[in-house]
Amino acid sequence: MITVEGFEFAGIHAGIKQKKKDLALIYAPEGATFAAVTTTNKFGAAGVHYTQALLKKTDTLQAVMVNSGNANALTGDKGIRDISDLLTALGKSLPQINKDNSVLLSTGIIGKHLPVEIMTQALPKLAHSLSPDATPFAQAIMTTDLTIKTSVRTLDVDGRSVQLVGICKGSGMIQPNMATMHGFILTNADIPTSDLRSWINDIADSSFNRITVDSDASTNDTLMLLASRKGPTIPTSRQAEFRTLMKEIAVDLAQQIIQDGEGCTKFVTFTVDHADNDGDARAIFFAVCNSPLVKTAWFGENPNFGRILCSAGKIESSLVAEKVDLWMGPHLLVKQGAVVPMDKAILDAYMKNRNLTFRLDLNQGTSHFTGWTTDLSYEYVKINAEYN
Amino acid sequence: MITVEGFEFAGIHAGIKQKKKDLALIYAPEGATFAAVTTTNKFGAAGVHYTQALLKKTDTLQAVMVNSGNANALTGDKGIRDISDLLTALGKSLPQINKDNSVLLSTGIIGKHLPVEIMTQALPKLAHSLSPDATPFAQAIMTTDLTIKTSVRTLDVDGRSVQLVGICKGSGMIQPNMATMHGFILTNADIPTSDLRSWINDIADSSFNRITVDSDASTNDTLMLLASRKGPTIPTSRQAEFRTLMKEIAVDLAQQIIQDGEGCTKFVTFTVDHADNDGDARAIFFAVCNSPLVKTAWFGENPNFGRILCSAGKIESSLVAEKVDLWMGPHLLVKQGAVVPMDKAILDAYMKNRNLTFRLDLNQGTSHFTGWTTDLSYEYVKINAEYN
Repeated sequence: MITVEGFEFAGIHAGIKQKKKDLALIYAPEGATFAAVTTTNKFGAAGVHYTQALLKKTDTLQAVMVNSGNANALTGDKGIRDISDLLTALGKSLPQINKDNSVLLSTGIIGKHLPVEIMTQALPKLAHSLSPDATPFAQAIMTTDLTIKTSVRTLDVDGRSVQLVGICKGSGMIQPNMATMHGFILTNADIPTSDLRSWINDIADSSFNRITVDSDASTNDTLMLLASRKGPTIPTSRQAEFRTLMKEIAVDLAQQIIQDGEGCTKFVTFTVDHADNDGDARAIFFAVCNSPLVKTAWFGENPNFGRILCSAGKIESSLVAEKVDLWMGPHLLVKQGAVVPMDKAILDAYMKNRNLTFRLDLNQGTSHFTGWTTDLSYEYVKINAEYN
Repeated sequence: MITVEGFEFAGIHAGIKQKKKDLALIYAPEGATFAAVTTTNKFGAAGVHYTQALLKKTDTLQAVMVNSGNANALTGDKGIRDISDLLTALGKSLPQINKDNSVLLSTGIIGKHLPVEIMTQALPKLAHSLSPDATPFAQAIMTTDLTIKTSVRTLDVDGRSVQLVGICKGSGMIQPNMATMHGFILTNADIPTSDLRSWINDIADSSFNRITVDSDASTNDTLMLLASRKGPTIPTSRQAEFRTLMKEIAVDLAQQIIQDGEGCTKFVTFTVDHADNDGDARAIFFAVCNSPLVKTAWFGENPNFGRILCSAGKIESSLVAEKVDLWMGPHLLVKQGAVVPMDKAILDAYMKNRNLTFRLDLNQGTSHFTGWTTDLSYEYVKINAEYN
């Protein structure tokens, strides 16, 4: 059982999807301070616009409702009205809620209006099933995910327990930008809104903004931090430690998204080292890790490092071909831009691992970027060709 | 039989590949004026560097040798020496050749040195098999291509025939940038080098720079124009017509690359209309047409227009979501950023076509960009996972 003091959770089947759980709720009866970052996609979903507006209007949240199976994106003004109507209806089952302190986030198919009537009918059941256990919530926010994704840390502050719980979903349409798919990090600590909002970008940049499955930043990506303030205050001397734990949770969740990436058979840690500047390091990471040729070679367990360099070299950057070294695990494959003769059997054996590590050393400056990605398999094509 | 006055051709099996033809030659006994554009990839192959040097040194070419099966990329200084040695050796079989007017271009696997000895042994056979027919050449430059790609036009100038012949190869690692995979456009017309070199960027930009299979600009892309000057001079009044024919050939060849794109089951013409500026129109085209989610939906014959808008919205641009219309063939799917209710059976029926057309209208300015791309199929993954 996963619990956080000050929060209750629910996850049920409302009928948006055919069989699986599709409607979830985080409920903070006495409110929670919060921060959020959302997708930079120009076709941000209704829930994303709603969240952005809330950030300006309020410092606390009482209810975060989340549905899967329908993204409520490309739904125009009606999409916003549907959220408002559903939050009003939720208030009938949970009269303690102030509608202005609640939100509905969505993921799933883009371009369909929410089935408001079906969802409204399910709200009493949703409210009734609230409990301290976050597991049904983690289940109900899943779309193509195969597993729930949670991460838990605790911190002892003067004999009192600070709880940190991360929950996320995501497995395709993954290259978050300033945010992730749906990610929630909850704590009982007494943290003011202003602190959460000053920390969240750094947390996103060190975790969810370092992963890619398929290069597509979703219309619905949202990362939210919530603090119920029922637990201890974090003394200034322990704040760095607390923030490190939050980052650890975020990195753990981000890596879980990659491990569960659509059709994933390889978990790849890729580092761009000694770049001239941070922008180049990041851009080269994404050029390589979004290349279908690189990703299909990994799927084929093929040590085709030529494709890695080809994709690294295709973009504008300060990379100088004659300076570049490429490492695969412990093996130096390319030195100063030219191939190093190697026993292919050794390379083939390395590629059999599920976890692969590459390091592209530009031998130029002091910037580096490490991120995580998947391969590109038949199963990825199958999942996304058949998704409807 | 495909012929061009002033040129001879050969294509043989030298032994670089196991069975198929892998060594090709264009021979202009009396020389040909030429222009070339090559890949902007930072890991440009030895043949690309060699071509760039030739452009500075000479106005005419006598021999363009091309091998498949090995890209001669990431091969350092030895890669350049190998080319030089092979061109010297070619001179022994074709004593008329001035080595300074010849070049060797390569495609195939990256990161292996050319099998110089095997290739050298094959050069007498290559020279002996020269003939006026370009077909064996078109066959021998193929890598994962399933079909040869040629395009022919003629122009009558004062009763004399001007011949234009295009030959190219390419099916994966295709998002050329200022160039294509290997493309050759030959003519017997009397065109000075300076004219060819002033035309070539425009020709590449209207054709090969408008296609993408998988977003990866290759290390070896080269487009070359060659004129034997054995035929008529093009009068000033007919030059526009002549250049239009050259562009037609280039567009035809570019579309053939897409039709033969690795694992292609859909040929998609995608237009970005009424953009604020040319850069946005181009960038949005490539953001959509390189999205694995869009491409797998097309493969699944799934009218999932949400993914098209999601990928268009993920990049920085002047796009305003509330202004965007999306057309699929004759069907308006999205109007002013919101979904238009449609009979799904009609959309499903449209998606059964092999040739699909989409038009994303930004309703902002006067720029537009039309290009061509493929879907992403199981077969693409298979070809690239197994390529070795």
